[in-house]
Amino acid sequence: MNAIAHHPREESAERRWSRFKPIVDGDGYVESLRNRGVKVYLFGELIDEPVDHPIIRPSINALKRTYDLAVEDPELATAHSDLIDARVNRFLHIVGSPQDLVMKNRMQRRLGQLTGTCFQRCAGLDTISVLHSITYDIDAKHGTPYHQRYLEFMRHAQRNNIIIGAGMTDPKGDRSKRPSEQVDPDLFLHVTKRTEQGIYVTGAKAHMTGGLNSHWICVMPTMNMGPNDRDYAIVGMVPGDAEGLTYIYGRQSCDTRAMETGEIDKGNAKFGGQETLVVFEDVFIPHEHVLMDGEHEFAQDMVARFTSYHRASYVCKTGLGDVMVGAAAAIAEMNGADHAGHIKDKLVEMTHLNETIYSSAIASSHEAKPLPSGIFMNDSMLANVCKHNVTRFPYEISRLAQDLAGGLMVTLPSEQDFDHEVAGPMLKKYFQGRANVPVEHRQRMLRLIENMTLGRNAVGYLTESMHGAGSPQAQRIQILRGMEVERKKAYAEDLAGIVHEDNVTA
Amino acid sequence: MNAIAHHPREESAERRWSRFKPIVDGDGYVESLRNRGVKVYLFGELIDEPVDHPIIRPSINALKRTYDLAVEDPELATAHSDLIDARVNRFLHIVGSPQDLVMKNRMQRRLGQLTGTCFQRCAGLDTISVLHSITYDIDAKHGTPYHQRYLEFMRHAQRNNIIIGAGMTDPKGDRSKRPSEQVDPDLFLHVTKRTEQGIYVTGAKAHMTGGLNSHWICVMPTMNMGPNDRDYAIVGMVPGDAEGLTYIYGRQSCDTRAMETGEIDKGNAKFGGQETLVVFEDVFIPHEHVLMDGEHEFAQDMVARFTSYHRASYVCKTGLGDVMVGAAAAIAEMNGADHAGHIKDKLVEMTHLNETIYSSAIASSHEAKPLPSGIFMNDSMLANVCKHNVTRFPYEISRLAQDLAGGLMVTLPSEQDFDHEVAGPMLKKYFQGRANVPVEHRQRMLRLIENMTLGRNAVGYLTESMHGAGSPQAQRIQILRGMEVERKKAYAEDLAGIVHEDNVTA
Amino acid sequence: MNAIAHHPREESAERRWSRFKPIVDGDGYVESLRNRGVKVYLFGELIDEPVDHPIIRPSINALKRTYDLAVEDPELATAHSDLIDARVNRFLHIVGSPQDLVMKNRMQRRLGQLTGTCFQRCAGLDTISVLHSITYDIDAKHGTPYHQRYLEFMRHAQRNNIIIGAGMTDPKGDRSKRPSEQVDPDLFLHVTKRTEQGIYVTGAKAHMTGGLNSHWICVMPTMNMGPNDRDYAIVGMVPGDAEGLTYIYGRQSCDTRAMETGEIDKGNAKFGGQETLVVFEDVFIPHEHVLMDGEHEFAQDMVARFTSYHRASYVCKTGLGDVMVGAAAAIAEMNGADHAGHIKDKLVEMTHLNETIYSSAIASSHEAKPLPSGIFMNDSMLANVCKHNVTRFPYEISRLAQDLAGGLMVTLPSEQDFDHEVAGPMLKKYFQGRANVPVEHRQRMLRLIENMTLGRNAVGYLTESMHGAGSPQAQRIQILRGMEVERKKAYAEDLAGIVHEDNVTA
Amino acid sequence: MNAIAHHPREESAERRWSRFKPIVDGDGYVESLRNRGVKVYLFGELIDEPVDHPIIRPSINALKRTYDLAVEDPELATAHSDLIDARVNRFLHIVGSPQDLVMKNRMQRRLGQLTGTCFQRCAGLDTISVLHSITYDIDAKHGTPYHQRYLEFMRHAQRNNIIIGAGMTDPKGDRSKRPSEQVDPDLFLHVTKRTEQGIYVTGAKAHMTGGLNSHWICVMPTMNMGPNDRDYAIVGMVPGDAEGLTYIYGRQSCDTRAMETGEIDKGNAKFGGQETLVVFEDVFIPHEHVLMDGEHEFAQDMVARFTSYHRASYVCKTGLGDVMVGAAAAIAEMNGADHAGHIKDKLVEMTHLNETIYSSAIASSHEAKPLPSGIFMNDSMLANVCKHNVTRFPYEISRLAQDLAGGLMVTLPSEQDFDHEVAGPMLKKYFQGRANVPVEHRQRMLRLIENMTLGRNAVGYLTESMHGAGSPQAQRIQILRGMEVERKKAYAEDLAGIVHEDNVTA
Repeated sequence: MNAIAHHPREESAERRWSRFKPIVDGDGYVESLRNRGVKVYLFGELIDEPVDHPIIRPSINALKRTYDLAVEDPELATAHSDLIDARVNRFLHIVGSPQDLVMKNRMQRRLGQLTGTCFQRCAGLDTISVLHSITYDIDAKHGTPYHQRYLEFMRHAQRNNIIIGAGMTDPKGDRSKRPSEQVDPDLFLHVTKRTEQGIYVTGAKAHMTGGLNSHWICVMPTMNMGPNDRDYAIVGMVPGDAEGLTYIYGRQSCDTRAMETGEIDKGNAKFGGQETLVVFEDVFIPHEHVLMDGEHEFAQDMVARFTSYHRASYVCKTGLGDVMVGAAAAIAEMNGADHAGHIKDKLVEMTHLNETIYSSAIASSHEAKPLPSGIFMNDSMLANVCKHNVTRFPYEISRLAQDLAGGLMVTLPSEQDFDHEVAGPMLKKYFQGRANVPVEHRQRMLRLIENMTLGRNAVGYLTESMHGAGSPQAQRIQILRGMEVERKKAYAEDLAGIVHEDNVTA
Repeated sequence: MNAIAHHPREESAERRWSRFKPIVDGDGYVESLRNRGVKVYLFGELIDEPVDHPIIRPSINALKRTYDLAVEDPELATAHSDLIDARVNRFLHIVGSPQDLVMKNRMQRRLGQLTGTCFQRCAGLDTISVLHSITYDIDAKHGTPYHQRYLEFMRHAQRNNIIIGAGMTDPKGDRSKRPSEQVDPDLFLHVTKRTEQGIYVTGAKAHMTGGLNSHWICVMPTMNMGPNDRDYAIVGMVPGDAEGLTYIYGRQSCDTRAMETGEIDKGNAKFGGQETLVVFEDVFIPHEHVLMDGEHEFAQDMVARFTSYHRASYVCKTGLGDVMVGAAAAIAEMNGADHAGHIKDKLVEMTHLNETIYSSAIASSHEAKPLPSGIFMNDSMLANVCKHNVTRFPYEISRLAQDLAGGLMVTLPSEQDFDHEVAGPMLKKYFQGRANVPVEHRQRMLRLIENMTLGRNAVGYLTESMHGAGSPQAQRIQILRGMEVERKKAYAEDLAGIVHEDNVTA
Repeated sequence: MNAIAHHPREESAERRWSRFKPIVDGDGYVESLRNRGVKVYLFGELIDEPVDHPIIRPSINALKRTYDLAVEDPELATAHSDLIDARVNRFLHIVGSPQDLVMKNRMQRRLGQLTGTCFQRCAGLDTISVLHSITYDIDAKHGTPYHQRYLEFMRHAQRNNIIIGAGMTDPKGDRSKRPSEQVDPDLFLHVTKRTEQGIYVTGAKAHMTGGLNSHWICVMPTMNMGPNDRDYAIVGMVPGDAEGLTYIYGRQSCDTRAMETGEIDKGNAKFGGQETLVVFEDVFIPHEHVLMDGEHEFAQDMVARFTSYHRASYVCKTGLGDVMVGAAAAIAEMNGADHAGHIKDKLVEMTHLNETIYSSAIASSHEAKPLPSGIFMNDSMLANVCKHNVTRFPYEISRLAQDLAGGLMVTLPSEQDFDHEVAGPMLKKYFQGRANVPVEHRQRMLRLIENMTLGRNAVGYLTESMHGAGSPQAQRIQILRGMEVERKKAYAEDLAGIVHEDNVTA
Repeated sequence: MNAIAHHPREESAERRWSRFKPIVDGDGYVESLRNRGVKVYLFGELIDEPVDHPIIRPSINALKRTYDLAVEDPELATAHSDLIDARVNRFLHIVGSPQDLVMKNRMQRRLGQLTGTCFQRCAGLDTISVLHSITYDIDAKHGTPYHQRYLEFMRHAQRNNIIIGAGMTDPKGDRSKRPSEQVDPDLFLHVTKRTEQGIYVTGAKAHMTGGLNSHWICVMPTMNMGPNDRDYAIVGMVPGDAEGLTYIYGRQSCDTRAMETGEIDKGNAKFGGQETLVVFEDVFIPHEHVLMDGEHEFAQDMVARFTSYHRASYVCKTGLGDVMVGAAAAIAEMNGADHAGHIKDKLVEMTHLNETIYSSAIASSHEAKPLPSGIFMNDSMLANVCKHNVTRFPYEISRLAQDLAGGLMVTLPSEQDFDHEVAGPMLKKYFQGRANVPVEHRQRMLRLIENMTLGRNAVGYLTESMHGAGSPQAQRIQILRGMEVERKKAYAEDLAGIVHEDNVTA
């Protein structure tokens, strides 16, 4: 896999898997990304080797951490797979019980604590879970072979310990029109040709988290589909280096700090997130890797199950919230303000909000129910509640962290000025806070809070918390659907003594 | 038990139990409360038979519902007790697993839906749980026989299917002083005499929920105790009709509507809560019913465990929240406003807040851990988070319900006016809302919302949500204690690249 | 005026005024209400003399306070009227300048502080303001004589120092239909007959604040009217004791406490609000007192101006908020908790919210602009903002007050129990808080907070804050209308560098 | 002034003024900043000519706008000065009436709309106001000549139309120690030498908004001072190019985007804020420019008056809020979502919060009271309320704007990618939203919202809103001081019927 290969477009499933060898740890993961020959644009340039690009590397490091954690803490970050009868990375594990979902949430929080950013692997994990039950259900109705294909794919995936990214969000164009009604048919990814070997797809997937860092991309419908949208009702597995793929890198607040000399001003020098637009131009998918092809009536259910899993995955933000609480406490201490009652009170509030999010996520997992395929799905209402709180509380936690940080967070001169022979000593003299605390520690902590509330990782902690897995209104619609208002009206009528002549409530 | 007996003060444990016979259902429970000869004051009068008092009866009905639910839905409201090898009411069940705690929460929500008020039995249930582990721990340290006494008491309790009330909150007097330092020693309940047969206690327990409706009262410390407070570090079981007890009934908003003719203006004619002051004057407790006597160092832990259990029990308010959602939806429909977008949005918000509370409670239960005595205690941080949200969200849900109700909720004339031959037809003519909806239905629904947001059951839905199981600041103190700020600071320092010379974080 | 007169239905304007004599002070006001022979129903009974009814009297006392304040503090509560060249009660003053509106707000806050309830006179005052400009505008278009009639009416009103109540809210029936389309034409008040002397109206006005306590009722449209609704587009002045009027008294939370012996449990024994349904059956209005008759196109503007004035009048709630802050501070002190940081912090939050409301109200008044008739109207956007905050902040202030009050607020036994020879000493022993503070003071303060957050005056402080002068959504609609989004989009486009080809923003 | 002069350290007042000539408009202002020879460090380099630095220039542009507005809209942005009997820029005008303060607020909002950032001139303006009254008060007590010196300085300032910056915030070092107790005496600016000509000061002023862009810096105490702090109780005027001054530029989120090619990704290419650390090393101030020298007892009052003026100046954020509302409305429209009810509702909420801030500010100004020197000070309570809302609402407005923007805001590729021959057409194809809206417009609007919620101007809109003019706790302390709790307790006691034996409340 280490020599750049331009793969033929119409490549067999077998040949595609043949490029992989089992990844053992984080370093192996990073190596696995080298020399893939992917086409990536960033700042108007085609990038030679994304792995070495200073803006891209932190996002790779975050995923690397998921491999290293599996080594360090296998109880938390691996699980036994019946499929290959071996322990596998939990991000490749098919959730077989409520406890599996709970462990998933704990791992997500832990990785949030360790990286302070989006580690980009949850959408893929939740896709794995969805596909188990959806392929099973489609087969049950249509006699299709999707579920076995899925299991076979997963065996390869687990053995090779690879990353699957979720390619879900189509650009959508004119929102008032269905996929098949768009002026430009490519605004939803669709089949352009079918051959004996497989299908060809064209379109794009936007906001693809960690797209470039995944070994395989699962393309799937982004919303419900009608009978005319059959060519859009497609699920398929595509290797990240397939012919016909182009990645265009999304920029983030303060992204170019990663290219500056020095480390301090980066805030979190090691870890970052990644969002890409992935363009598909007649990309081939062999039949073995096609898991839905035209069964449009399952698209809605697929999306609903995916969001149920994925909205609880936003529990990861409680890991980032832990970092925020810690950073706020640390800077307050460095400022000499940690004993003030209002400071403690704000830390308590941050913790309270953070744990409120946590409780909705794990409650949702604990309350999981089995699906026909035998695996479990977490509680949809509580998952929506979790995500909806995620669209609110990180913003308030961030506001409180800025309160505790003090104004210096946004007036602090650059690291280069601190290193300058004239300016540096002035800065160190005047920005000395509590004795015994090096000024550099203060700089670093302020830059971390800046990073998470305004900078690069604010994208993951705030804006992604708002829009990932669906914007707030999407959760409200689900809550509206699930809130069983008729049942609740009956409670109220019963207590109020209202008796309907034709429908007496006991 | 049906002839009023004035029991001798120094009564044996055996004789005390001899008065009971197993209660089978709600009616049996109501009968069990008759003719007990308890001394109860209400509106300056000694009440003859509390069971028949129109203000008291709704509070008895709420407890009655806990018996009837056990008959109707045994899966939910009963559990198998190893202690007597039989199914028992879940309110008497010793929680043996996380699932037991989850089932407890579900039953609590259900009873909230069924009664729309405080059904007064949770503090007693949580006391049962605490005593299992605390008596075990005391015995382990001191070689005392409390745990066996406890188990023996519980066998009687389960066989007779009785209600245990929690007598916890002492009046406290001057808050800056410890129990033994108060000018008036009675401001904390304490031992006044010890004999071979037992102990005598004097003092009072305030805010005793359902005090008068319980068969037994468990007195226990309200806070941590020091070496000088040994006489105050007492846990004991007292029958509700023991000699020396006086109950003084707490009044509630709109309580006297229960004494009006008609049913509509009561809002919730059947169910209500109850708070009493219980005064103890040299009340005897035989040794068999003493479960702590001077082991002051366990008082703090006892309170901490109790609040951990009990703060999650406030999940009951989500049952009341369900009623609020239902009532708000119903009145919006009756007003003809149910299709407005902002109305739906408010129902969604109410539901979101309500389910947020629910998730913290059951998450806390699912995440329970075993104690040395073998039973489980729910997660303390999440229980505190649950209760803390309960001090906020019901107020907002209530505000939104008032929004949807419309101003008529507080300008509606009395039921008697609706029945008047002149005024009645005017009212029915002018308060007709949507066609086909009887004006009386509208009246009833408005009165229910009034009942829960301003009236009698607002006490349970709002103010008790604020102060029960500890006021908001009590939860904040627990969150502060449990928030592990050093661990979180380490995460932040690690990401910020801060290296302590003497303490390198990996 | 002191002998009960049954006035002939078709009574002249002159004769109607002849019944009045100038009211000098509060006592005179109370006397003026006696023997009017009004038909009032309360609890299914026709009330003999409302003035002496214990439930009604507190609402009269609140209005009485507006007279006494004029005597005590003429600078605040009176103003010079050019109309009669004499100082008049500010509630009868036609606002001639922004400063008049500011003084109105200050007086309203002051009366909130003095009464702790709704003093029922603001809607009438704001009606006076609206009619000045609307009658002027109608006359300008139609050559009608309304403005002179209005001025003449106001001269009488000012000389006699009477109270005008606003009869605005029609029952509305089926909300999807216009007035003229209702099945029952009476669901909006309308003209049933026109004679040479005047008009006859039938219908009802709901939620009429202080209806029974007003000397005159101004009936006016409740919403915009179309060409078919001419008979509904009516403004007229009706004496409160006119033939054909029936009042049905709205009940309030805890209203019957006013009928109990003792004073403490009432919470605020002296003052209360009042809401009534007023039914009009062929009530006559002489032409001299008709100020709009069919000019339907002015209805919308009339309502818009009224709400602009009236939404800022909700500044009165900051007076009640002051009482809440004071009561919360007082009870915290009695509980011995006033030095805790979190207690102070909550008082600060209550104050902050209260002053935020205040600032929107007086800002709205200071920013008033003149209307064609020469008087001033306050800023509509800020008035809506004020009222919208009033639908939120009093609920939060109330919640915080309940927090500081402690649970005893809802478990405190009745005043009668405190007076009982056995129960009383027990209660005084056990409810003693901080030394030197009489238990009775604590009782009284708790009952006041109960009164304002759950009881009778919670109606005025909370639910009326929600719905009075329009429900929250009504303000949101006005804010939407006034928010000038195109202007703001232009700012954003300008800064973003967006140039429209056809419409270049400078 | 256009040849770089290294001015002698001990320069006379006259000579200092001789360098200035009247500035007529924005271009003249920019010219006036050239060739001053100031020492500025940025990114570890001494900057040659700050005016031409791409990171610095936007902050100069923002101030330039204050000059141009004076030309475009003299009614708003200039005022007649009695001091020189001519119209002067309102930022140099001594507020002589409440209306002056109101006009100040309107101008501030307007400039917020025009620049979308902090235009850096308010602290200087509020300093001018404070010094008028404080110098007057010191003279009245001590017979000093400060007020005349102040007036003379202001005559020069107005004639030359210059900018005065406020140098207030000392680094403070160990917060538990007073200025004179610090280990390093320079941690508060202080007098190091006194001569016949003047004084020399050493120290630093942190977070100095627009420091580098001001012609003169007013140094003044940052907090109350004691008798031992006389050398720290200094007010003096220093030209920005005085010998001994060093500026170190504070960096901001996304600051280096200003150095990128292209304009779109900057979000707001024209305008930005500026924060600098200004170091003073034996900087000379001639006596004519010393306005306080040791009168330590006035320091507290000076700070209190400054914060009263300055906290209301945060009304500028409502101008930025207008831009946010406009940007959110515009992007919703471009996304094709502007007709959704929840979108409109969020725009209403943003507006409501924004206008709530506005109302507190102008209410504070309208309610101004005169000081002994004859000028007016705005209401302190309402100014604190204004600023306190500013520490909350812009964060919520920003959150809502991110909601409306959609996730694309943080996944959008760079402008350079849009211009690339391969990537560009892909991006334009797939990011086309509503027909007829150029993709570039969408890019620009998203970048503007990013700029204000995460990027460079988020510093001004969010973090500065939190900490400028004092952090939230500073306002809470002022609200605590001003909330008159005793008066409010008296209201509550009066209504509750509490009579103190020794202190009967009327």
